[in-house]
Amino acid sequence: MALPHEFLAVIKTAFPGDFLTQEQAELDAYGRDWTKVFPPKPSAIVFPRTTDEVSRFLKLCSQQKIAVVPSGGRTGLSAGAVAAKGEVVLSFSKMNKMNPVDTLSQTVRVQAGAVTEAVHRHCEAHGVTWPVDFASKGSSQVGGNIATNAGGVKVIRYGMARNWVLGLQVVTMNGEVLELNGALEKNNTGIDLRQLFIGSDGTLGVITEATLKLSRLPEHLDVFFFALSDMSAVLKLFHRARQAPFPLMAFETLTRNCLEAVTSVRSLKDPFAEKHGVYVLMEVERPSNSSPSSPGDALDEWLTRLFEDGLVEDGTLAQSPREARDLWQLREGVAESIGHLGIPHKNDIALPISSLEAFVREMYEMFERRHSEFSIYLFGHIGDGNLHVNTLKPKDAELAPFLAKCHEADKDLFELVKKYQGSISAEHGIGLLKKEALKYSRTPQEMEIFRGMKKVFDPANLLNPGKIFD
Amino acid sequence: MALPHEFLAVIKTAFPGDFLTQEQAELDAYGRDWTKVFPPKPSAIVFPRTTDEVSRFLKLCSQQKIAVVPSGGRTGLSAGAVAAKGEVVLSFSKMNKMNPVDTLSQTVRVQAGAVTEAVHRHCEAHGVTWPVDFASKGSSQVGGNIATNAGGVKVIRYGMARNWVLGLQVVTMNGEVLELNGALEKNNTGIDLRQLFIGSDGTLGVITEATLKLSRLPEHLDVFFFALSDMSAVLKLFHRARQAPFPLMAFETLTRNCLEAVTSVRSLKDPFAEKHGVYVLMEVERPSNSSPSSPGDALDEWLTRLFEDGLVEDGTLAQSPREARDLWQLREGVAESIGHLGIPHKNDIALPISSLEAFVREMYEMFERRHSEFSIYLFGHIGDGNLHVNTLKPKDAELAPFLAKCHEADKDLFELVKKYQGSISAEHGIGLLKKEALKYSRTPQEMEIFRGMKKVFDPANLLNPGKIFD
Repeated sequence: MALPHEFLAVIKTAFPGDFLTQEQAELDAYGRDWTKVFPPKPSAIVFPRTTDEVSRFLKLCSQQKIAVVPSGGRTGLSAGAVAAKGEVVLSFSKMNKMNPVDTLSQTVRVQAGAVTEAVHRHCEAHGVTWPVDFASKGSSQVGGNIATNAGGVKVIRYGMARNWVLGLQVVTMNGEVLELNGALEKNNTGIDLRQLFIGSDGTLGVITEATLKLSRLPEHLDVFFFALSDMSAVLKLFHRARQAPFPLMAFETLTRNCLEAVTSVRSLKDPFAEKHGVYVLMEVERPSNSSPSSPGDALDEWLTRLFEDGLVEDGTLAQSPREARDLWQLREGVAESIGHLGIPHKNDIALPISSLEAFVREMYEMFERRHSEFSIYLFGHIGDGNLHVNTLKPKDAELAPFLAKCHEADKDLFELVKKYQGSISAEHGIGLLKKEALKYSRTPQEMEIFRGMKKVFDPANLLNPGKIFD
Repeated sequence: MALPHEFLAVIKTAFPGDFLTQEQAELDAYGRDWTKVFPPKPSAIVFPRTTDEVSRFLKLCSQQKIAVVPSGGRTGLSAGAVAAKGEVVLSFSKMNKMNPVDTLSQTVRVQAGAVTEAVHRHCEAHGVTWPVDFASKGSSQVGGNIATNAGGVKVIRYGMARNWVLGLQVVTMNGEVLELNGALEKNNTGIDLRQLFIGSDGTLGVITEATLKLSRLPEHLDVFFFALSDMSAVLKLFHRARQAPFPLMAFETLTRNCLEAVTSVRSLKDPFAEKHGVYVLMEVERPSNSSPSSPGDALDEWLTRLFEDGLVEDGTLAQSPREARDLWQLREGVAESIGHLGIPHKNDIALPISSLEAFVREMYEMFERRHSEFSIYLFGHIGDGNLHVNTLKPKDAELAPFLAKCHEADKDLFELVKKYQGSISAEHGIGLLKKEALKYSRTPQEMEIFRGMKKVFDPANLLNPGKIFD
């Protein structure tokens, strides 16, 4: 799509020489995210270095009626940062500065383009971390993490990204710079606008800087891998783990076929001699004053009782950091390994924890009854009520009919999610990919309120248009 | 103010007989909150028992253009629930049902009128709690706690009320019932509308039910009381405490004159033989696997080093639950005790933690230079950057000139708060009382956005009108 000459002329005179590119390779790379479903079609990519540049650029776009897609590390799984309709992509790749860590406040202020893992490394030396953690942290950026309210593998301990944002600097589509909440832990001065921008996929404003709340690095982590008979046993184990006298850092689950996928693709060893129905990875923080020779009497006692009561069929405890990493691979490698076996169709749903058992039973029955051609790969953050439900295209099946069938199965799945008052997108967001499914989790009234909010911030619908809602 | 006959006729036919009262004693009681600054003038009080009644009532008020003030336990300190202009008060006193605790999900759904302390008792038997805790918990209600994003004495450990709300049922002014987020821990399906209602003082919608997130009850708490020379030492101690290997439950401070106020008014003993400049109450959770005979080697070592390094001048550890309660009284009794000495003027400010030392120094200098007639009583949740700054009317001074002087001193104080990017209301909110001060913490652009939000939810400005903004 051709950009107006006047727009390009202003860019040339009022912005640095490398601010805007229309190179095809850049358009291809920066126009898409990890979903790869929608072909990218941006008209240009811009690379601001400062908030002032973002502000002047958005003001210009407002004047010229040019649509903008804010873009972070592009690791999203719902096409929230895809530019498919000739928008200009506003990339934060060159806005990645990090202030020194404020060790007294336990905060750090960074630009939106700071890479998640770089923030972790930046903080680690001070004994603190930004506890937003997931497999894509090497590419994802803080601004994107916040705009999508990222989840991950430590939500059970730390909550979502929302909990770890003290202040936001946001630029609205008309170029206004909002400084929201600064470095304050407490600030009850009217509506907390910061919360509006967290998780709204860059549809209301563009996050340019953030003051992150940091957490003390955990001391010693014990990683367990348990084998259990079925989901009912997993939930019983979870109930016990929650009441146990040590902090739970992660409580993740995967079914037998997920374990087989990851052990075969990554050449990892099944930790157990026998086959089991379902597995749990549990990570706990070991009480710091327990001596290394007796790693927590409370934990020992708790474990002994698990086996006595027959709650788990087998179990192993990592004896070294290397073993811990291997056990974690069995869980974190699942999504990628399934991808190696064929083309997966992914869903990311959440249920109230007390409904999980009934939901999972009914979901398997539904697939068996109505979509028996699918194998279900079930894994996820069970401790948060969050399940990743993947189905795999059979090797000999055509793609188009497979996707059409997935679409049918999704309808049944989402009806079931709705019945149990769940969410059709626990952590992946809505973006372009899940707009159609949104009606299963949000009402027409709520959609009307979304549109009302949008009008307050972006009446001309120029900021990430068509994401979440039309 | 007289209510329209048509309105009263509908109330009579379509609602229970005891739904509405215009008794003077009820108007006086339910029209005000703990601020007692604005004389109450409601035209009626209504007592719904169900969400359906709230919905039908608000729809009726919308049709009849009748303004409504939602009202919880009325313990607020900013007149957020005062009906001073003939509004109808919507009291939740009869909507206080609590569902059974869901022990697997660690959640409980309650009506908005459930009293905070009643929720605590309801949950305690299951080894869990709703960790929103403050002195007024015996009267305050969950709906009000959420609508004002309540803080309190455990924020350093658990965060504000916002963090402990999974789902909200909200009724908008046109009578629509929104079910926001249910019992879900993770739900990234568009704008998180729930966050909008938390802390917006009932100006956007009326909270009728909430699904509360619960936390495991802490095991054993150790309560320390330290004596220090000045605020600089307090911050050094805080820095150490944050890095220490045990969970910090509270870190509170008070100056010498606060301690004298509370010991004299409540006939409590000063824990120390000498006088000191400032005091800290610190509560920590004792690692659960430490035996009672050796309460945490790590803690012991940490304490020994504190004294060796001369960071604290004196200190005591509560040896029994009774002693712990007494030490807590020294902190929690401050506000009330100051009230016994005379008429206090209260401020509740927050600063970035790393600015606290410089701010406090400059604040004392400012008072000394420009308002030396005031004694400053300084106490609060220093670990959250939250200070309560009270000044006391001298016994022989007239009230009106005292208040005028307070008003002048507030301007200087708020300019200083603004200079350090702080908040003029950390946890008390804005309501009617602090509207004038809001400009020191929020910009005209933000106020414009507030008004935009208000238009989306309540275009006729009938819901808690004039609170936070006009």
